[in-house]
Amino acid sequence: MATRTPAATETIETDVVVVGAGPVGLFQVFELGLQEVRAHVVDSLPNAGGQCVELYGDKPIYDIPGLPFCTGRELAERLLQQIEPFGAGFHLEQQVSELRGRDDGRFDAATSSGTRFVAKAVVVAGGVGAFQARRLKLDGLDRYRGTQLFEHAATLHAHAGRHVAIVGGGEAAVRAAIDAADAGASAPGSIALIHRRDDLDADEPALQRLRELRASGTVRFIAGQPESIIEEGGRLAALSVLCGDGTTRTVPLDTLFVLLGWSPKLGPIADWGLALEKKQLVVDTQRFETSTPGIFAVGDVNTYPGKKKLIVCGFHEATLAAFAIAERVWPDRFEPLQYTTTSARLHKLLGVAPGLP
Amino acid sequence: MATRTPAATETIETDVVVVGAGPVGLFQVFELGLQEVRAHVVDSLPNAGGQCVELYGDKPIYDIPGLPFCTGRELAERLLQQIEPFGAGFHLEQQVSELRGRDDGRFDAATSSGTRFVAKAVVVAGGVGAFQARRLKLDGLDRYRGTQLFEHAATLHAHAGRHVAIVGGGEAAVRAAIDAADAGASAPGSIALIHRRDDLDADEPALQRLRELRASGTVRFIAGQPESIIEEGGRLAALSVLCGDGTTRTVPLDTLFVLLGWSPKLGPIADWGLALEKKQLVVDTQRFETSTPGIFAVGDVNTYPGKKKLIVCGFHEATLAAFAIAERVWPDRFEPLQYTTTSARLHKLLGVAPGLP
Repeated sequence: MATRTPAATETIETDVVVVGAGPVGLFQVFELGLQEVRAHVVDSLPNAGGQCVELYGDKPIYDIPGLPFCTGRELAERLLQQIEPFGAGFHLEQQVSELRGRDDGRFDAATSSGTRFVAKAVVVAGGVGAFQARRLKLDGLDRYRGTQLFEHAATLHAHAGRHVAIVGGGEAAVRAAIDAADAGASAPGSIALIHRRDDLDADEPALQRLRELRASGTVRFIAGQPESIIEEGGRLAALSVLCGDGTTRTVPLDTLFVLLGWSPKLGPIADWGLALEKKQLVVDTQRFETSTPGIFAVGDVNTYPGKKKLIVCGFHEATLAAFAIAERVWPDRFEPLQYTTTSARLHKLLGVAPGLP
Repeated sequence: MATRTPAATETIETDVVVVGAGPVGLFQVFELGLQEVRAHVVDSLPNAGGQCVELYGDKPIYDIPGLPFCTGRELAERLLQQIEPFGAGFHLEQQVSELRGRDDGRFDAATSSGTRFVAKAVVVAGGVGAFQARRLKLDGLDRYRGTQLFEHAATLHAHAGRHVAIVGGGEAAVRAAIDAADAGASAPGSIALIHRRDDLDADEPALQRLRELRASGTVRFIAGQPESIIEEGGRLAALSVLCGDGTTRTVPLDTLFVLLGWSPKLGPIADWGLALEKKQLVVDTQRFETSTPGIFAVGDVNTYPGKKKLIVCGFHEATLAAFAIAERVWPDRFEPLQYTTTSARLHKLLGVAPGLP
């Protein structure tokens, strides 16, 4: 998977921009690839896989046809392997913030990071929306975002040895506490994990490691709810936490990681003038095209009579959308339906030996 | 997989009869199972898996989402494993030959083997039709069917040691020649394999083994086309074969296996009064129901605007059909969409431990 972060001034000309790197967006790349249609994929999350990785990474899925059991992460990995022959560009941690039609029938798209595309078609595979980090709402906190306040753990290692406060009770928060400790040189108690109750949700090995770190005093656990920030000399100096026992504790910090999970927002998609029904994009069941020709919608983000928000349905929608998009990208081509089992052309595209059994 | 062959007089009451045990018919059982709808499956072939096993058993499929590569047989095996929790009844080597509506809104169905069903719904997952063995058309040959003429290799071992002639050049014919030799006690040359050219199509280990058997004289290969039968005393005594070099050879035999592959026929389905378009069953895209309420059609056998004959599309069709059928089977139940990842009810149906990660 190639992650590209081109200069803000570069414009990428491609066939299709796929908005969303969840399982349906990934399979969209595959079906487009079989049609010799190139794609770039944009997602707000830091990894491909969408909800499957972010929310269900280690949780089981039983209803993918032919996969009696897999985890969300495994499904994403399998799909990434499957689309590898097609070399799609991935643009992560950014949202498609602007989209407008051009006079030549193509679309201009731009992301929140400044990546610009010109594309012949757009597929919204946006799931339940772009995932945005849940924020901790405390007066005056927002101004420290990016300096002392972070809502993802990517920069955690840069803060080793300082006072780190982590707010959250899920996998990401637990792992961040462990990673902060493992980053080393922390004074006892310099890592604080704050969650409303002592009912942390992570896998057992992580919880066991955290218990050890708590027992050794490396990580302090504080059961309570942050109420306000304490500033000193223009810096964020501490959190004031209302504890379960009714007392208020001051947690000093150099850096605050708020890891409360992700919340989906339909976001800019709602502003593109596409027909919506209960916040879903209305599509037909032949091409899975929205009310704007050339903009398609597949997976949980769309609606049509009978729609069920199931991955297996999104795979079908992406397949038919790919055929409709191929007509747009290759208007003069006519080819009968080909099968990956027998077609030499598809074998070449997939990079598999023609002589395979 | 339970294969049941009840007495002809027994009538099976069930929720759904699924006509066709190809990949889409199998996944239909899975989606019905998640809805607590019981199913029985009927197929004309001797094994579940449909074309995937019969025509593409060892051939690769690349476009099943999440399975970058699998063979047809592997796909069928994976689906059989996936549907195991639902204990569907299988009725193989028979066709649903009769289907009619009852006054109580259910359907009477009967197979060519005399199995009878009363069901609340019927799903035709018939692919390109019921597969029927391709026949060798020679004057007078048909009257020996079942005594000296067979179109599948299942009874081959009963003929060990006798003169066996096999007509065909594919996997089934090659394996039958090897099996006949391995069954033992054959006089040299008593096994004849007849195909128009010496270009047999089977996997390399099978071809290698056949070369050895030909070299040792156990199997005779005859490149030619059967022209007529030779009878003696009311028995089939030999085939007259026009060879590639223009000569005619007489191949004596006790038993003739014609293994020319399978040819699909829509068969009795065409007579059920369902709306057809170019020999496909017309369905809507919300419920995948035919023109007769309660009879559904999924997979390659159906048609609707945008239809593509791809397995991935059949999986979606079976999913939405299952929801529509559940409304019919459980008219008073209303439940929001549940996910296999999180639903305790679905975990129970699937027989998986609720505490799984």
